[in-house]
Amino acid sequence: MSPPSMLLHWSPRSPFVRKVMISAYELGLVDQIERRRSVVSMSVLNHDLLAYNPLGKIPTLVLGDGTVIADSLVICEYFDALVGGGRLIPAQGMARLEELTLHALANGWLESLVLWQNELQKPATARTTAWLEVFSVKTISALEYFELKIAVVGIRNFGVALITLGCCLSYLDFRLAFIDWRSLHPQLTAWYENFKDRPSSVRTEVVDDR
Amino acid sequence: MSPPSMLLHWSPRSPFVRKVMISAYELGLVDQIERRRSVVSMSVLNHDLLAYNPLGKIPTLVLGDGTVIADSLVICEYFDALVGGGRLIPAQGMARLEELTLHALANGWLESLVLWQNELQKPATARTTAWLEVFSVKTISALEYFELKIAVVGIRNFGVALITLGCCLSYLDFRLAFIDWRSLHPQLTAWYENFKDRPSSVRTEVVDDR
Repeated sequence: MSPPSMLLHWSPRSPFVRKVMISAYELGLVDQIERRRSVVSMSVLNHDLLAYNPLGKIPTLVLGDGTVIADSLVICEYFDALVGGGRLIPAQGMARLEELTLHALANGWLESLVLWQNELQKPATARTTAWLEVFSVKTISALEYFELKIAVVGIRNFGVALITLGCCLSYLDFRLAFIDWRSLHPQLTAWYENFKDRPSSVRTEVVDDR
Repeated sequence: MSPPSMLLHWSPRSPFVRKVMISAYELGLVDQIERRRSVVSMSVLNHDLLAYNPLGKIPTLVLGDGTVIADSLVICEYFDALVGGGRLIPAQGMARLEELTLHALANGWLESLVLWQNELQKPATARTTAWLEVFSVKTISALEYFELKIAVVGIRNFGVALITLGCCLSYLDFRLAFIDWRSLHPQLTAWYENFKDRPSSVRTEVVDDR
């Protein structure tokens, strides 16, 4: 049985879309996915997208029968159920809860990085200093956490948690390049070099074409 | 086998904590959960919490053996695996993907409401007008979506999606009371009256004791 046709509301620079696309490449699903470029931001709604997703968020996946699947984690779980057989998320037990918790921490960090970047795009006088301070400490804390964790989990399956972690580190380089995260995190740096070389990462790399 | 002891980093006013507590009441797990009050906000970090969760977010659940489970959805999935048997999230198939998508939309809406409330707490001159406009349209769109959806899904299992929807509507009343969401959404209003009467909702109701 061939997979159903799928339409992905997509953008080349959304790290959450990238997570889904890396997953699709890893599972060999990319040819089944039609991409529709959908630009969204905290300041700009995409009204066409509201018809599929009331929050107007990407990624949003629409199946051939009209079924809508969101958010990025649920899309990854769908891909895994379709063809992955647990490669992205172990099917059950503590291995599953560990993968999902690690994913939640990486994904929550990524959400915090996006909010930080949004705050930094404001004129300096309009920024909320206390927020900036909290964003900064959370990133220091997350880097310390993943630096220790990667030695344990870096060798296991490249699942949804590590895919999301790769998107976080890539987002740091692309949007928050003033943060020199490599100097204090050698394990994470080494792991990220491998991540960057994976074909799924190379093919979804964010290019600054502004 | 009795469930393991669990420590929940908790706050009485976090809607994401409330989602977890309603789930615990629905599944009869509340007596197994020790609550530790952990105050967090976008402006104030909780440094004690960083030892368990590098993002310092609540809810965070710590099991007797030290295993950490986050975020709220993963904690609900853990409860369901422990004793729920799929009551909160169907185990597989399209029913599972539908529940998780509906949850992602309710949860994404709730995140948007919390960000909106954070923006409104700033002095009027410091608010980002474009963000406020987007928050407002997303809430109008989400209300329309759930008004139509509730007629279809309101009669099925009271799972993690509807629990989260209840937390959204309650958050509107508590934090964004200037929004008269009831007048245009009779189905949602009727459903919410039933939600409010459930013991799990009554016992977790947010009281304004400021």
